[in-house]
Amino acid sequence: MKQIANEVQQKLKELIADRSETDKGKRLFDAMRYSSERGKRLRPYLLVKTADLFNVDKERSLRAGCALEMIHCFSLIHDDLPAIDNDDLRRGFKTCHKQFDEPTAILAGDGLLTSAFTVLSDPKTHPDADIRIKLVDLYAKSTMGMIEGEFIDILADRGERFNLQEISHMQDLKTGCLISCAAMAGAILGKASEKESSALKNYSLDIGLAFQIADDILDIVGDEKKVGKALRKDEKAGKATFVSILGLDGARKKAKEIIDHAINELFIFGKKSDKLVELAKFIIERDK
Amino acid sequence: MKQIANEVQQKLKELIADRSETDKGKRLFDAMRYSSERGKRLRPYLLVKTADLFNVDKERSLRAGCALEMIHCFSLIHDDLPAIDNDDLRRGFKTCHKQFDEPTAILAGDGLLTSAFTVLSDPKTHPDADIRIKLVDLYAKSTMGMIEGEFIDILADRGERFNLQEISHMQDLKTGCLISCAAMAGAILGKASEKESSALKNYSLDIGLAFQIADDILDIVGDEKKVGKALRKDEKAGKATFVSILGLDGARKKAKEIIDHAINELFIFGKKSDKLVELAKFIIERDK
Repeated sequence: MKQIANEVQQKLKELIADRSETDKGKRLFDAMRYSSERGKRLRPYLLVKTADLFNVDKERSLRAGCALEMIHCFSLIHDDLPAIDNDDLRRGFKTCHKQFDEPTAILAGDGLLTSAFTVLSDPKTHPDADIRIKLVDLYAKSTMGMIEGEFIDILADRGERFNLQEISHMQDLKTGCLISCAAMAGAILGKASEKESSALKNYSLDIGLAFQIADDILDIVGDEKKVGKALRKDEKAGKATFVSILGLDGARKKAKEIIDHAINELFIFGKKSDKLVELAKFIIERDK
Repeated sequence: MKQIANEVQQKLKELIADRSETDKGKRLFDAMRYSSERGKRLRPYLLVKTADLFNVDKERSLRAGCALEMIHCFSLIHDDLPAIDNDDLRRGFKTCHKQFDEPTAILAGDGLLTSAFTVLSDPKTHPDADIRIKLVDLYAKSTMGMIEGEFIDILADRGERFNLQEISHMQDLKTGCLISCAAMAGAILGKASEKESSALKNYSLDIGLAFQIADDILDIVGDEKKVGKALRKDEKAGKATFVSILGLDGARKKAKEIIDHAINELFIFGKKSDKLVELAKFIIERDK
């Protein structure tokens, strides 16, 4: 995972090189790069490892993974804004609007989202236009789902009441959409069969949900220094989360069940999917 | 122009239909529709009329025009935010963050930008994947240019000094990129020759620049009620504009020269381009 993260880092730097048309525009690209410098790179990793099931050329899966990470980073910049989560720290570093300023953060987010589609439309991502346009469609729809999830999450932040089903649905959108997008992009690049796509979709929806439950648990028991952002915010705000509804043990049990289910879906791929099995386990065992 | 505007309005309503996955997400789509309800529809008009030169199917050019208008509306929502221009009125109605709230406005802008790519990737926009992916590439690059222009415009708002060349360049990016995108999208849909594309590109860059000079003039001499937004802001802020540098008469003369030049570029299309000639004249004669 670390190796892929390094490759993603390198490739992102190359893809978000300073393309400013003017001297005065450089700072915008600095902000875009700054906000995509860190991270677990979970989504690109999942994308690359899914594509590996079908022996997809690494350069292609890496580019598609970077485009997805750019969208993920855009969403973090906008989530962190004063009008939304008002967070000062992200991954242990100042958030974009703290390091630069608010207008720059809004536009750097917009820029990362936009540039992801430039990466996808480049023949280097796949020589076949039909594959590239399928990726564009997948990414745009997944991003819209993620944005809706974020919108609903704000309602939860404001103390609106949610039941377990509503929380699950919100998380499916907010976190699940982009995680599922990673697996589906790997399937598109690999020209997966319908049966394979369906198994990967189920797997990715499961790990997306488990990821969010693990996040809710980390928000309670995590070490702020390791996680690199302010914790215990949900509890203080009285926000509905998996932990507030199921309790800590209930949430842990639920996450474990979901991960077992995810791993079962990979059965059809046999040993080739070992990395995806490990990833599923990592999702709920991580401490940051 | 009015007829196309009505068709654009109808089609946008259809394209930004409530696609929310949850009851709680409906309001986000309301905000996206609200912010794309009004406007001159200059960019879709230019796109449709350019495509008409090549007898492109109307449904296709209208869809591509709506995708571009969605990007234009996204840029207006974000520009109007308190952290950027802090505007309360747009086209005579409350801006998105005033009608809804700030988080909703940020996400509605993100949603419109994202959804534009869903429209472009749909085979209804063009059956040929190669044409669709060319549009995606064009729109993404044009949008990135527009975002950089907006970024530099903020520096101008803060009173940073600009010379005439720098102002021109900023405006080429901020306004010119999307206007040029309209003409180039028409050319792509119409499979224009290199010579035709090049003439249309020059024409569109010219009218984009003239459009912005006209905007700067309107900011001084315009009727706030007609224009539908707060005027005289640039002057109060001591912002560098075409008028502040060239004077009112100088700016008018410059706009006229540019429009004459734009019209010359259309020579190769003969009478078929009459609508584009009219559009060029309208750009500097409009009072809103």
